Amino acid sequence: MRTGVWLVGARGSVATTSIVGALALRAGLAGPTGCVTELPELRGPALPSFAELVFGGHDPVLTPLAKRAETLAAAGVVPGRLVAALADDLAAVESDLRPAPVGGTQADRIAVVVADLTEFRRRHELARIVVVNVSATEAAVTPHPAHADPAALAEALAGPDEVLPPSSLYAYAAFTAGCSYVDFTPSTGARLPALAALAAERGLPYAGHDGKTGETLVKSVLAPMFAMRNLAVRSWSGINLLGGGDGATLADPAANAAKVESKQRVLGETLGYQPQGDTRIDYVEELGDFKTAWDLITFAGFLGTGMRLEFTWHGCDSALAAPLVLDLARITAATHAAGRSGPLPELAFFFKDPIGAPTHSLAEQWALLRQHVTRLHAAAEGTDVPAE
Amino acid sequence: MRTGVWLVGARGSVATTSIVGALALRAGLAGPTGCVTELPELRGPALPSFAELVFGGHDPVLTPLAKRAETLAAAGVVPGRLVAALADDLAAVESDLRPAPVGGTQADRIAVVVADLTEFRRRHELARIVVVNVSATEAAVTPHPAHADPAALAEALAGPDEVLPPSSLYAYAAFTAGCSYVDFTPSTGARLPALAALAAERGLPYAGHDGKTGETLVKSVLAPMFAMRNLAVRSWSGINLLGGGDGATLADPAANAAKVESKQRVLGETLGYQPQGDTRIDYVEELGDFKTAWDLITFAGFLGTGMRLEFTWHGCDSALAAPLVLDLARITAATHAAGRSGPLPELAFFFKDPIGAPTHSLAEQWALLRQHVTRLHAAAEGTDVPAE
Amino acid sequence: MRTGVWLVGARGSVATTSIVGALALRAGLAGPTGCVTELPELRGPALPSFAELVFGGHDPVLTPLAKRAETLAAAGVVPGRLVAALADDLAAVESDLRPAPVGGTQADRIAVVVADLTEFRRRHELARIVVVNVSATEAAVTPHPAHADPAALAEALAGPDEVLPPSSLYAYAAFTAGCSYVDFTPSTGARLPALAALAAERGLPYAGHDGKTGETLVKSVLAPMFAMRNLAVRSWSGINLLGGGDGATLADPAANAAKVESKQRVLGETLGYQPQGDTRIDYVEELGDFKTAWDLITFAGFLGTGMRLEFTWHGCDSALAAPLVLDLARITAATHAAGRSGPLPELAFFFKDPIGAPTHSLAEQWALLRQHVTRLHAAAEGTDVPAE
Amino acid sequence: MRTGVWLVGARGSVATTSIVGALALRAGLAGPTGCVTELPELRGPALPSFAELVFGGHDPVLTPLAKRAETLAAAGVVPGRLVAALADDLAAVESDLRPAPVGGTQADRIAVVVADLTEFRRRHELARIVVVNVSATEAAVTPHPAHADPAALAEALAGPDEVLPPSSLYAYAAFTAGCSYVDFTPSTGARLPALAALAAERGLPYAGHDGKTGETLVKSVLAPMFAMRNLAVRSWSGINLLGGGDGATLADPAANAAKVESKQRVLGETLGYQPQGDTRIDYVEELGDFKTAWDLITFAGFLGTGMRLEFTWHGCDSALAAPLVLDLARITAATHAAGRSGPLPELAFFFKDPIGAPTHSLAEQWALLRQHVTRLHAAAEGTDVPAE
Ligand SMILES: NC(=O)c1ccc[n+]([C@@H]2O[C@H](COP(=O)([O-])OP(=O)(O)OC[C@H]3O[C@@H](n4cnc5c(N)ncnc54)[C@H](O)[C@@H]3O)[C@@H](O)[C@H]2O)c1
Ligand SMILES: NC(=O)c1ccc[n+]([C@@H]2O[C@H](COP(=O)([O-])OP(=O)(O)OC[C@H]3O[C@@H](n4cnc5c(N)ncnc54)[C@H](O)[C@@H]3O)[C@@H](O)[C@H]2O)c1
Ligand SMILES: NC(=O)c1ccc[n+]([C@@H]2O[C@H](COP(=O)([O-])OP(=O)(O)OC[C@H]3O[C@@H](n4cnc5c(N)ncnc54)[C@H](O)[C@@H]3O)[C@@H](O)[C@H]2O)c1
Ligand SMILES: NC(=O)c1ccc[n+]([C@@H]2O[C@H](COP(=O)([O-])OP(=O)(O)OC[C@H]3O[C@@H](n4cnc5c(N)ncnc54)[C@H](O)[C@@H]3O)[C@@H](O)[C@H]2O)c1
Ligand code: NA
Ligand code: NA
Repeated sequence: MRTGVWLVGARGSVATTSIVGALALRAGLAGPTGCVTELPELRGPALPSFAELVFGGHDPVLTPLAKRAETLAAAGVVPGRLVAALADDLAAVESDLRPAPVGGTQADRIAVVVADLTEFRRRHELARIVVVNVSATEAAVTPHPAHADPAALAEALAGPDEVLPPSSLYAYAAFTAGCSYVDFTPSTGARLPALAALAAERGLPYAGHDGKTGETLVKSVLAPMFAMRNLAVRSWSGINLLGGGDGATLADPAANAAKVESKQRVLGETLGYQPQGDTRIDYVEELGDFKTAWDLITFAGFLGTGMRLEFTWHGCDSALAAPLVLDLARITAATHAAGRSGPLPELAFFFKDPIGAPTHSLAEQWALLRQHVTRLHAAAEGTDVPAE
Repeated sequence: MRTGVWLVGARGSVATTSIVGALALRAGLAGPTGCVTELPELRGPALPSFAELVFGGHDPVLTPLAKRAETLAAAGVVPGRLVAALADDLAAVESDLRPAPVGGTQADRIAVVVADLTEFRRRHELARIVVVNVSATEAAVTPHPAHADPAALAEALAGPDEVLPPSSLYAYAAFTAGCSYVDFTPSTGARLPALAALAAERGLPYAGHDGKTGETLVKSVLAPMFAMRNLAVRSWSGINLLGGGDGATLADPAANAAKVESKQRVLGETLGYQPQGDTRIDYVEELGDFKTAWDLITFAGFLGTGMRLEFTWHGCDSALAAPLVLDLARITAATHAAGRSGPLPELAFFFKDPIGAPTHSLAEQWALLRQHVTRLHAAAEGTDVPAE
Repeated sequence: MRTGVWLVGARGSVATTSIVGALALRAGLAGPTGCVTELPELRGPALPSFAELVFGGHDPVLTPLAKRAETLAAAGVVPGRLVAALADDLAAVESDLRPAPVGGTQADRIAVVVADLTEFRRRHELARIVVVNVSATEAAVTPHPAHADPAALAEALAGPDEVLPPSSLYAYAAFTAGCSYVDFTPSTGARLPALAALAAERGLPYAGHDGKTGETLVKSVLAPMFAMRNLAVRSWSGINLLGGGDGATLADPAANAAKVESKQRVLGETLGYQPQGDTRIDYVEELGDFKTAWDLITFAGFLGTGMRLEFTWHGCDSALAAPLVLDLARITAATHAAGRSGPLPELAFFFKDPIGAPTHSLAEQWALLRQHVTRLHAAAEGTDVPAE
Repeated sequence: MRTGVWLVGARGSVATTSIVGALALRAGLAGPTGCVTELPELRGPALPSFAELVFGGHDPVLTPLAKRAETLAAAGVVPGRLVAALADDLAAVESDLRPAPVGGTQADRIAVVVADLTEFRRRHELARIVVVNVSATEAAVTPHPAHADPAALAEALAGPDEVLPPSSLYAYAAFTAGCSYVDFTPSTGARLPALAALAAERGLPYAGHDGKTGETLVKSVLAPMFAMRNLAVRSWSGINLLGGGDGATLADPAANAAKVESKQRVLGETLGYQPQGDTRIDYVEELGDFKTAWDLITFAGFLGTGMRLEFTWHGCDSALAAPLVLDLARITAATHAAGRSGPLPELAFFFKDPIGAPTHSLAEQWALLRQHVTRLHAAAEGTDVPAE
């Protein structure tokens, strides 16, 4: 069951690492560390294999993929020997990358994307395509009346205005081309009523937002710990220092704000109250693709005694994100195949700011994910899973 | 439903903090921060209220309880104003404390403990008593053939040998006197076949071991996080610096060894493999009742990229332990009242080294605990909870 | 040799802690931990004793000093027993505190301050007075032509404009009243040409700026360490989390900016280049008078190998600042007595942003300070110190 | 002025990194980051240039140097491109390495080392040789009467006993062959009366012990900071986690003990009292050549207020050590050339446990070093430096 993975931001760090990793897995040159779909609890027949994934994508930048992979190898993100060994496979993917459309109306650009997707499906005889947004984080969207309704939106897109931010434009194109959509960024993506309606109409699933890879991942287990123990979190302050392309983007206050907001949500929703303290993101070029996050949590125990926990996370964002991109592509494709449409809150496990936000506890998100994937496998095998 | 809480080590830091806290809660002078039985998910009619708890206990040391409470206030463990306000209540508890028995055979000492418990129940017209071991950690037990069998044990206890370590002697006495038993320490307690048989015979429940309050609490959410994300933990090293009475005891290598072993178990069992690295416990007198633990975790992500997480926990052990002691007393009493006997793996949430060790993931332990307590409440209300 | 210490911001945390501490030292109730003038290297006959210090000051706030001291005791900044024991002495100081003048022209307010100082000197038969600014940090000063010249300034002050920021107004009054001036804050103080001229004319010494108590103190030894070892600091990022009155003031971006700038100076000047990274100050009310600073330093060693150092400082700002305020008062008084006037770069040891900034290395500043104080003692004893 | 650098432990991590680095510097392929002799304060005519250094050494292990360099490159200690570019130069050094002598009496082995040194000097027409011990740390030496006196020692060495530990055997051989000696390890080296006498007799300088590269380097600036500020350090606890060859050696308790002792000395001697707490060294294989040290310092400020500082050092030991080995070789050779003999306390800057231990403050050690090197340059230039 050949499945397309169309990456918006295809030459970025996350995309390149995802592609190198999938090719390495296919070639038996690397193991699936970091891929949750390879855990015994999630593995099974419903998911397309790594070998069945075919990559393509859009990017405005034209640096060759092999060049980007070499840069990542020099930075210690991917092993240099893999990049060398996969030269031919990378060249093959290169031929499936397309420039991000520019000029014309937004409707014109959507048409280009739809044509690129359709042609990609035909060329590789794909059963289906998952469009995954891993492009640079956008500023928060400017509200527009046409966001409320598909008809109004279609009309507005044909006009001169930039009605949709790029992420939503890609979501629109994905749905139009019959593809599911995953947003790994905090950008708007499919989160507009008009796009939700479009996905429902076409029977397509979508998931997001903002891959949960670092400080927020740790928060999603520590905050429930304090809650389960009835300890009162008084303050939770954090700082994220990062370089890399994503860091450079986030040096822009508008993009930064979107990101910080999605990072803070987990606390208030898990604890039931908002502790004092802020999360900050600072760009430090020299840190490159490795991010250091430091968090200080002060809390009160029995009879008000003050205590504290601090942690330092030193992670490689792209190496954390890439296997999740592959997981999301596999699960979303299988979910699409199973006939499910609309938002997928069952995939909250992967996101900082999950659509539907059923819970922010990683353990509870894990239970939801297991149940969802188990059902996909059961359906694929024709067996039944009793409803819970 | 007046319920006795008999503390072995009644003048220690944990015991004193538990007593001060329960009296403060009863008097409305403090809230239940840190008490999980007061969370909406666990609150309910099956549990004795704080006002229904009556305290007594054994300790070889004779320092007045009020004096111990003042020392803890000076050290910042409990608020000084509470100790002052509760002077009369503390004096009342003082009259229910008994010296730890000395001399004679172990059977003689057991008889004293049984008599103390029986008299305590009579004096306060208690529905039942929970014996909670919060005394100093012992060295690992020396095996003895009589541990295998109640009859052989009864005979050996009447002889001159020290067949049982103190914790097991108290467990024996508790069961003989018809009391349930909770071990908050890493000591042997009821974990001997002969004692398990005795508990079964008398229809009494018991729980343990080693209250989970600091570094191991954090481990029990972080280790599952790495497991759920299929990240490969390469090393996990930790150091615990602590003063206080417990620290002084742990400066003894034998007691230290028992503690360290119960701390390491969570990793191997959660991850499915044992990462490199050790946990250390060092006594630093000046740190007093506050403990600082530092852990370094190195792990590999996708394609082998190395990353790291480090955390520093700065907690007040007694303030973390005391509310759990109250929780355990309430839940164990209710479980006893519900007619349940034998080991209680449902209480794993509270322990570093839980009996039966169903799982080391805090979130899964929490689910087990909720289910258990929900059923107790349902039974108490005469309603039914559907089996899962 | 009775010496007045006139505190601008006399009811603030630093001032109150300084007063409580000096009274406790005088009464033999506390030792001189944190006072560098009591180190063997600096102790000697030129310095007024603690018993010879007499306190007074201005503050717009009217909360009684004893009340402020109790608040600090409750927050763990000073021991409660000292505040209780010193009630009478605190009441005596209370009678020497004056409201900060309001209304009228700046010349009017200066006249009030001068009168208060003169009266204070007369009332207590003081040999001299050191005015120490420990009031809230101001925003950066707005340039004004009258700052350039004493005559122009005198004229402008009589007009309706707010020509001088409060700190400079106090410095003006101090010099006019024949007092030396120390600025423990990052505010402007005496750093205007007109004020420098005034000090020179009156033969008065002054020192500042911004007491070096936390993160910057650590920086002032770590940055020279990297320099001495020829290690290349690539980035140095820091975050300061603090509550308290000072924290609340710094939540204001303008005050924050002044402070951050004085914190960053040490790096560029010590290393000879400016590493990447910023210092941030965030207000977290719940942290109260204790500040947590976290710094991450990334550096390159031989052949470019990347390494890192991170530190967390958890300090009580007022407890760090107060003994330095006493040290500064003693040394500045002795320097004044020795006939020295103008700025005192020899006191760089105490400041984040030292006037004259001879060096930012703590060890070199220490050598300068020792030499200065040794000479004061030698002069006081009539012996000679050979020039170096 | 060609100068030999004879490395004992020539195939170890420190030695290999030193050689690769010196060759890279000579070839203009790398800059002198980490080399203090290239700082403006120390640079000058007395020191042999990097191009004038010629390397040789002993090691019992026979792994080719190029192989060791590749292993270090794979571990991220040295850049792989340097190792590739320097293949020929490494092969040249390879031809000057000799197996560590085995068998026979200690006198026989000394004779082999002396012959190897003499032949090395002749072969390369060296002005002089510095023998630098960078071999594995030994256990503490067993006292022997012959250690007291050169004559007794000479006699004992000819007998069957292992009178000297290996480091001292090399020091003996070095002095016998007219070479100066530097010990970068905590081993005994020249620290025996008989060896001191031998060095004096031959007019040879020597220096040591134990290169100061990580936790102790930081201690040597932080401890003076606390002392200069009259802050009372209550406890200082540390843990060092390291892999690599050195880590494997230190997993042996005897070697560990020697190292820990040399690490603790700095505190007691700088502060004037010994704070509570210990330093630990743990072997964690997976950390490889990178070491993580964590230290917790608790201290009291004014009026006893408790505060804390913690730091995490994450350094590459060999990359920190290697430039210092080159610095020591250059300075010791120049000191030898200047006619100085005996122990060199002026080189304390480089060592955890400096011979003569004039001070443990890095800043004061820096002043001593500057003065020493400035005089060497002045003498080399025929100018005079006024005595201080
Ligand atoms: N790496 C992580 O751990 C992580 C976690 C959560 C979210 N994310 C998000 O993933 C995204 C990618 O991160 P990255 O580190 O790869 O960043 P990156 O800067 O390396 O890559 C972004 C790519 O998007 C491209 N791009 C920009 N605008 C585009 C457009 N309109 N259409 C198509 N492509 C466009 C850029 O040219 C670039 O190649 C970011 O939004 C980031 O916030 C990453
Ligand atoms: N505080 C925590 O967070 C925590 C967590 C897990 C386990 N624990 C365990 O709880 C226990 C108590 O800790 P603590 O800090 O109160 O220690 P502590 O030293 O303050 O108190 C122990 C008390 O036990 C008494 N005791 C010693 N031998 C006894 C005996 N044979 N019979 C009766 N009493 C005896 C001592 O006299 C002392 O009063 C320790 O075993 C500790 O390991 C504590
Ligand atoms: N504590 C430290 O470690 C430290 C270090 C460096 C600098 N400082 C500086 O010391 C100053 C005092 O700090 P704090 O923690 O005591 O702050 P605080 O807020 O507790 O006290 C400041 C006091 O100044 C008074 N004040 C405000 N405006 C005034 C005016 N015009 N005239 C006279 N008094 C005035 C306020 O009423 C208040 O009582 C701040 O500027 C701070 O930045 C403190
Ligand atoms: N790297 C640092 O930061 C640092 C700092 C201070 C001290 N040191 C000391 O430097 C020494 C070297 O460290 P390393 O990391 O290179 O260790 P390593 O284990 O990589 O190298 C030691 C070498 O010594 C050789 N050796 C063992 N016995 C010998 C003998 N009798 N004669 C000659 N060679 C012998 C070994 O075969 C090995 O090649 C250690 O003693 C270490 O404690 C290192
Ligand atoms: Na830390
Ligand atoms: Na840290």
